[in-house]
Amino acid sequence: MEAPIQDLFTINNLWMMVSTLLIFIMHLGFATLEAGLTRAKNTVNILFKNTIIPAIGLLTYALVGFNLMYPGAEFAGSFFGFSGFGLSLPEGWDSSNYNAGYTYFTDFIFQAMFAATAATIVSGAVAERMKLGPFITFSLLYVGVCYPIVGMWKWGGGFLNTLETPFYDFAGSTIVHTVGGWAALVGAFLLGPRIGKYTPTGMKAIPGHNIPMATMGVFLLWFGWFGFNGGSVLSADPGTVSRVFVTTSLAASAGAIAALITSYIKFKTYDITMVLNGILAGLVGITAGADKMGVLDAVYIGAIGGILVVLGVIAFDKLKIDDPVGALAVHLVGGIWGTLAVGIFGELAGLNQLLSQFIGIAAVGAFCFGSSWLIFFTLKRTVGIRVDEKEEIEGLDINEHQMRAYPDFASKD
Amino acid sequence: MEAPIQDLFTINNLWMMVSTLLIFIMHLGFATLEAGLTRAKNTVNILFKNTIIPAIGLLTYALVGFNLMYPGAEFAGSFFGFSGFGLSLPEGWDSSNYNAGYTYFTDFIFQAMFAATAATIVSGAVAERMKLGPFITFSLLYVGVCYPIVGMWKWGGGFLNTLETPFYDFAGSTIVHTVGGWAALVGAFLLGPRIGKYTPTGMKAIPGHNIPMATMGVFLLWFGWFGFNGGSVLSADPGTVSRVFVTTSLAASAGAIAALITSYIKFKTYDITMVLNGILAGLVGITAGADKMGVLDAVYIGAIGGILVVLGVIAFDKLKIDDPVGALAVHLVGGIWGTLAVGIFGELAGLNQLLSQFIGIAAVGAFCFGSSWLIFFTLKRTVGIRVDEKEEIEGLDINEHQMRAYPDFASKD
Amino acid sequence: MEAPIQDLFTINNLWMMVSTLLIFIMHLGFATLEAGLTRAKNTVNILFKNTIIPAIGLLTYALVGFNLMYPGAEFAGSFFGFSGFGLSLPEGWDSSNYNAGYTYFTDFIFQAMFAATAATIVSGAVAERMKLGPFITFSLLYVGVCYPIVGMWKWGGGFLNTLETPFYDFAGSTIVHTVGGWAALVGAFLLGPRIGKYTPTGMKAIPGHNIPMATMGVFLLWFGWFGFNGGSVLSADPGTVSRVFVTTSLAASAGAIAALITSYIKFKTYDITMVLNGILAGLVGITAGADKMGVLDAVYIGAIGGILVVLGVIAFDKLKIDDPVGALAVHLVGGIWGTLAVGIFGELAGLNQLLSQFIGIAAVGAFCFGSSWLIFFTLKRTVGIRVDEKEEIEGLDINEHQMRAYPDFASKD
Repeated sequence: MEAPIQDLFTINNLWMMVSTLLIFIMHLGFATLEAGLTRAKNTVNILFKNTIIPAIGLLTYALVGFNLMYPGAEFAGSFFGFSGFGLSLPEGWDSSNYNAGYTYFTDFIFQAMFAATAATIVSGAVAERMKLGPFITFSLLYVGVCYPIVGMWKWGGGFLNTLETPFYDFAGSTIVHTVGGWAALVGAFLLGPRIGKYTPTGMKAIPGHNIPMATMGVFLLWFGWFGFNGGSVLSADPGTVSRVFVTTSLAASAGAIAALITSYIKFKTYDITMVLNGILAGLVGITAGADKMGVLDAVYIGAIGGILVVLGVIAFDKLKIDDPVGALAVHLVGGIWGTLAVGIFGELAGLNQLLSQFIGIAAVGAFCFGSSWLIFFTLKRTVGIRVDEKEEIEGLDINEHQMRAYPDFASKD
Repeated sequence: MEAPIQDLFTINNLWMMVSTLLIFIMHLGFATLEAGLTRAKNTVNILFKNTIIPAIGLLTYALVGFNLMYPGAEFAGSFFGFSGFGLSLPEGWDSSNYNAGYTYFTDFIFQAMFAATAATIVSGAVAERMKLGPFITFSLLYVGVCYPIVGMWKWGGGFLNTLETPFYDFAGSTIVHTVGGWAALVGAFLLGPRIGKYTPTGMKAIPGHNIPMATMGVFLLWFGWFGFNGGSVLSADPGTVSRVFVTTSLAASAGAIAALITSYIKFKTYDITMVLNGILAGLVGITAGADKMGVLDAVYIGAIGGILVVLGVIAFDKLKIDDPVGALAVHLVGGIWGTLAVGIFGELAGLNQLLSQFIGIAAVGAFCFGSSWLIFFTLKRTVGIRVDEKEEIEGLDINEHQMRAYPDFASKD
Repeated sequence: MEAPIQDLFTINNLWMMVSTLLIFIMHLGFATLEAGLTRAKNTVNILFKNTIIPAIGLLTYALVGFNLMYPGAEFAGSFFGFSGFGLSLPEGWDSSNYNAGYTYFTDFIFQAMFAATAATIVSGAVAERMKLGPFITFSLLYVGVCYPIVGMWKWGGGFLNTLETPFYDFAGSTIVHTVGGWAALVGAFLLGPRIGKYTPTGMKAIPGHNIPMATMGVFLLWFGWFGFNGGSVLSADPGTVSRVFVTTSLAASAGAIAALITSYIKFKTYDITMVLNGILAGLVGITAGADKMGVLDAVYIGAIGGILVVLGVIAFDKLKIDDPVGALAVHLVGGIWGTLAVGIFGELAGLNQLLSQFIGIAAVGAFCFGSSWLIFFTLKRTVGIRVDEKEEIEGLDINEHQMRAYPDFASKD
């Protein structure tokens, strides 16, 4: 009579593995989005970073991250735990008694794919002016150590999970997106703006060099988000996963339309980059509560996300924090908004929940801001984080990589 | 003893959700195909339309479309039904008693992804000369109202489904592809050809600006078609879904080879755009009967589709109906061919079936031609549907969007 | 009480079908990788080949390949078998008694998708100088006949499977990758290097024209490899499939890092093409034993693959065998390394196994080298395999296809 349970286990595990590969392809989404929204002369550099990050992320997560993030039940309610280096092989690989929903190795690979996304968010905000070596060093430490510590606070059973009203973050508006967002803020601030971006006579738009590639990036991210959010159900439960598909997709759609309208009002034109960022903001926004929202809740959350992303891009430019791809408006603003939205909309709405959401945002923010400042600042004072002026003007590709992304095409100037 | 049924439900629902995300990525396929086959100066415009359509499609389908298309059993055999605005939440989201194969929300999101494809087909045929505002208005009405009404005729249990020999359209050669195709015909006709396409001295080919992107589009469409056709089984039934995979893939392959040979005979060159359209014609062709065909049937249907698409492209050019991406030959000709093929090949072949297929094609054609004419013509007489000459020559990107798709590259002229 | 078995069958079959579509999208990965790493003037030609190969592959595999590769139990231990032309329809399509894991048609379509990858590997190595017609002829024969004969030796129950210690090749380091690799070697050798590659004053790098496209190719290949290796489990068995996901991903990651370090030492720069090839070498390397390796084994195998690919690229250039995309270093060297690694690392490690691995590599190599030499050489002596000098310098696109991949952009020179 155990066969049915076995079957359900196989189904659940299958969905988690499919989700894993969907999250994997988000790295291509980030790569193409970021490359598309920056200049041709820095394209190889962006692609290099986005290619090496998943590799580093997977290896460090196997070495320390997984055991920092899920140190075990004895660390429940705590701030930190570590259960040793490497993957602690359970008895045999067929560890169906590890968990009701998936094997030990499915758990690892699913979580490892998540981990790398946090560093990828940073990569866009520091684009076109950061040295490669220090960026890799930062990613190694941030993905390998900082992200899993924060992740443990909620998903590993840490203190945010044991608040009286537990902090809620379904798939990571705070735990993934603001984690990336805070580091992006610190990095963009400590680096300073790109040469020519803010001039005495005003802000100068530096257009992305390949809009089709950026568009592809957003579609691939939305595609992957079905696994990012859908897989966070941690089983193939039909009711919950299909609900998550619906809330995720409607929030993305509402984000697109709201950003279209907001940007049309602000700029009197149909700005595709705003629509693309509106989709992402809708997706980031719904991520914290995708399994707790109704249809209309999802539309509201996405639409507000789409408005905020346009205002956010404008605001960061006013603050002269140069973020070439809009990562701060999408992941930091969108992530905070989505986390708060769990206290405002849907099944968990309520003052106590809203308070817990604030606590979670603040705690994660303080740690991530502090730790990324520490790493970036140390790197700045030692090896330096910014390429020199000549290199920035000529482009990072020819200087850091001795090659061009498109050697057969004539450039504009 | 209910556990096994529960398991099968979870499996079926899982496949429907995976199919949903495969259909979603078809929108990226359409975006890249259409952008690749048109000129660089109109690329942002094409991408904008293809990005906004799924967003509009999902939202309008939630608001009215789903309840127009599936109004309920009481409208069986009828022409029209509507069960109210918004999604009528069943008791709880875990509505496993909604259906043997999937939840209410899986049903919605799967069908919603389908809906948006109809408008995307139009976008290619009206490319490079249509105003953005009227196009969005058209899409809103066509996806929100026209498509679900026609869809109800067959898939919602309407009159085409209750003919003595029911009209058969497995995954939408008529219900999706010709629905898009008729509107594409009306749009292309009412807009007129692009400037410089048909000159007194003959037809001038206007080559697409990015063949890799077009190729990527076709691969993504084929990839998504595994969900489009495979998901139309409405369960993970191993026999039927694997049969559909085989017929779909062989038809696409045969379409490619037949278009290669036909275009080589006609043009004495290896024309990749014809091979790409041959693949699509094979896919559109098999869509109506993918679950009723044998191996050889699929090869024949695909091959004839591949021949027809080449002849179709030539014929529409002779009629001076300018279709920049070949959408009419692929979706309208291919859709009609595929629908008729159900009466000629495979398990349902027979004169009565062929007659029902004609009825279905004609009824859908009359309604779609009429309704799209009404919308397009009204827009033409009021706000206008075509950009002015200067804008068309300079490109829609710089005029409608104040930006360029590839600002860092020097253009040819 | 049979329901649970039915359910498990449905799950297993579902995973095999999902794997099928993942392998399908690898063809887009090959297309974009190869196009990205070659020059803009030959892009249409590369895309054409990569589009037509899956079509040819699927059709020939239906006609003869499947029945050459899996001729049936009576040919166990033999070198050759054939069970007739076409697909031998089992009684009804719902052939759940065909196999414990999947239907007859799932089996066919999964194996057919595999088959086409062997020819795609060749396409990169012969790029930028081979005539289209002879290439198509070669692919037809190699995919249709040579690949399935070799595949039968192991996967069809042939003599390599009945050695005392059976040759082991889980997902095809030898059976797929070296099969493609040997033909790539013969093709590249018989064609000779591209004009201008090896000059009296030394080797001249011919940079790829579109690095984003090449990067996309590698991500899509890694994405598809989850199906290539994961599907080779031939069921959705949670323990084995999740193990394969982990070993595959870690090998790819280790390959990236090892190639990064090795190429930095060799060339003193961050060479993205080497990192991309490092990922592929890690993937090819783990393919033979992905289900038999532990976590650290996978890291070692991938890392050594990443080192070998850099050294391999250098070595083939020293031998003046011009391989525009590094296919030989990735698929031939990587495939041999991965096959041997089964005798060195993991559960099967041992001298007897290592010996069997040598036998398998040698037998497959001898047959593939010989048969591809026969085909290529015959073509060379009859119709010729290389385009003329003028055509090669102007580019194959304008000469073989009368079109350009990017007609709207100004080229560099």
